[in-house]
Amino acid sequence: MSSKSGMEQVLVENEVQQVRLLDSVNDDHGGVIVELSESMDSKVFASMLKASLALWRSQGKRGVWIKVPIELVNLVEAAVKEGFWFHHAEPKYLMLAFWIPEGAHTLPANASHRVGVGAFVMNKKREVLVVQEKSGLFRGTGVWKFPTGVVDEGEDICAAAMREVKEETAIDTEFVEVLAFRQSHKSFFDKSDLFFVCMLRPLTFDIEKQESEIEDAQWMPWDEYVAQPFVQKHELLKHLVGICKAKEDEAYFGFSPVPITSRFPDQKSYLYVNDRDLKGSKVRMSQTA
Amino acid sequence: MSSKSGMEQVLVENEVQQVRLLDSVNDDHGGVIVELSESMDSKVFASMLKASLALWRSQGKRGVWIKVPIELVNLVEAAVKEGFWFHHAEPKYLMLAFWIPEGAHTLPANASHRVGVGAFVMNKKREVLVVQEKSGLFRGTGVWKFPTGVVDEGEDICAAAMREVKEETAIDTEFVEVLAFRQSHKSFFDKSDLFFVCMLRPLTFDIEKQESEIEDAQWMPWDEYVAQPFVQKHELLKHLVGICKAKEDEAYFGFSPVPITSRFPDQKSYLYVNDRDLKGSKVRMSQTA
Repeated sequence: MSSKSGMEQVLVENEVQQVRLLDSVNDDHGGVIVELSESMDSKVFASMLKASLALWRSQGKRGVWIKVPIELVNLVEAAVKEGFWFHHAEPKYLMLAFWIPEGAHTLPANASHRVGVGAFVMNKKREVLVVQEKSGLFRGTGVWKFPTGVVDEGEDICAAAMREVKEETAIDTEFVEVLAFRQSHKSFFDKSDLFFVCMLRPLTFDIEKQESEIEDAQWMPWDEYVAQPFVQKHELLKHLVGICKAKEDEAYFGFSPVPITSRFPDQKSYLYVNDRDLKGSKVRMSQTA
Repeated sequence: MSSKSGMEQVLVENEVQQVRLLDSVNDDHGGVIVELSESMDSKVFASMLKASLALWRSQGKRGVWIKVPIELVNLVEAAVKEGFWFHHAEPKYLMLAFWIPEGAHTLPANASHRVGVGAFVMNKKREVLVVQEKSGLFRGTGVWKFPTGVVDEGEDICAAAMREVKEETAIDTEFVEVLAFRQSHKSFFDKSDLFFVCMLRPLTFDIEKQESEIEDAQWMPWDEYVAQPFVQKHELLKHLVGICKAKEDEAYFGFSPVPITSRFPDQKSYLYVNDRDLKGSKVRMSQTA
């Protein structure tokens, strides 16, 4: 193995004269990241990649990432021939990965879960904010349901819940807490799903439905919502009715978001905790202190 | 637009005689799924794809999925030329997508989050189960931390927490509840991260550390764990100390898993709820009934 590396190192020194190397930046884990942006012949790319790999190997680099925009799809095959594999993909790019050291790689696992939110929004007249959707599972069924949606890339769960309610009904809300969440599997192909049921407090009350996705929206008396046969039959919804009922009686506490700073000073994230219990516990601790 | 479809429909009827179509199965949303498995020339594939697309269009199909195993990477470029885009990828395959109808597609969003777990396991001597890792952020720092890990594809959060503890320390546990969770962004490239802090009850007590990943493991007195400078400085860990302390005093309740049936009768999933509050609320309701 060491003689092979040696040979490649010699090759680097010869080839560096003739072959351009790929532009790369170092990552925080001893590896490099290449973002391709220039269109080129796949043979030219293959020789640049070979030379670059030999150099990175001689430098003791570990993981190699190549981000291929979809316009440069002609370069994917050459990289796979060099031993790269697919790490993840989004509509406009494919991320390829390669591990230089011997042994199993320690590159991060791909994203495995889609994250969704549902919003329980009740006004002081015991009416709940519900919609009928133009597409999806419930289209044409006449079922009135909580506003729901998918959390966007980089979006906080609490922000997503408020955004979905605003988009679908134009109602402004304040986030209260996560009441419960469900994890389910194989929701699309082999990927899983985490669905967070959130409680929000309405700040405005005039509904304006979203034309593109929403058939109808209304403030519906809670008992009417609960009486829908669909809600009675669906196991998750039956549980949620119990939770929302307990919440209404102020007998149930979920998780509320507490902003915390992550590793990087400029990066805020949210920790979701049972704040009522924590505060109660602090009161008790200070009383016994 | 209709004349264009018409022309293609005629083309189908001509070409069906000469060109083999791609094998496909219908999905549940009016679309088709193609799983490529046979190696072929990319030009042959391109003409099969064109003919198949024309047929699917004439049949009123909507979304088209093509799963390309990495061995058949030579076929990706041809599909992209026909208008397919990258939907998601795993090491061994790339999933391509295409939307036949006019207007925006309604295909599911890709997975956006990786899911991790941390395990708080305390014995009756007020000792907490902690490890030192051989690699990662804490390597060589001397920091003792809760066992942590990534939730596998298709794995329940509660199962993942028990598995990680078992793998790293050989301790058998019973899952109690999710104490809190954190959502953070850009944890690798543009993907986000959901980290669930779980409490587990130990069922066995003899530690046997995992040789490959764990430098050391022990039952550590709780006060010693808390006194670590790293724990004192790290905002998330400081919060967790507060929660674990409240939990120890039985003053804190998180979310425990309730098995529910999903849409498909054979598919179980878990709803995580504040079970103590729910039960308390039911007791109160039955008392007032």
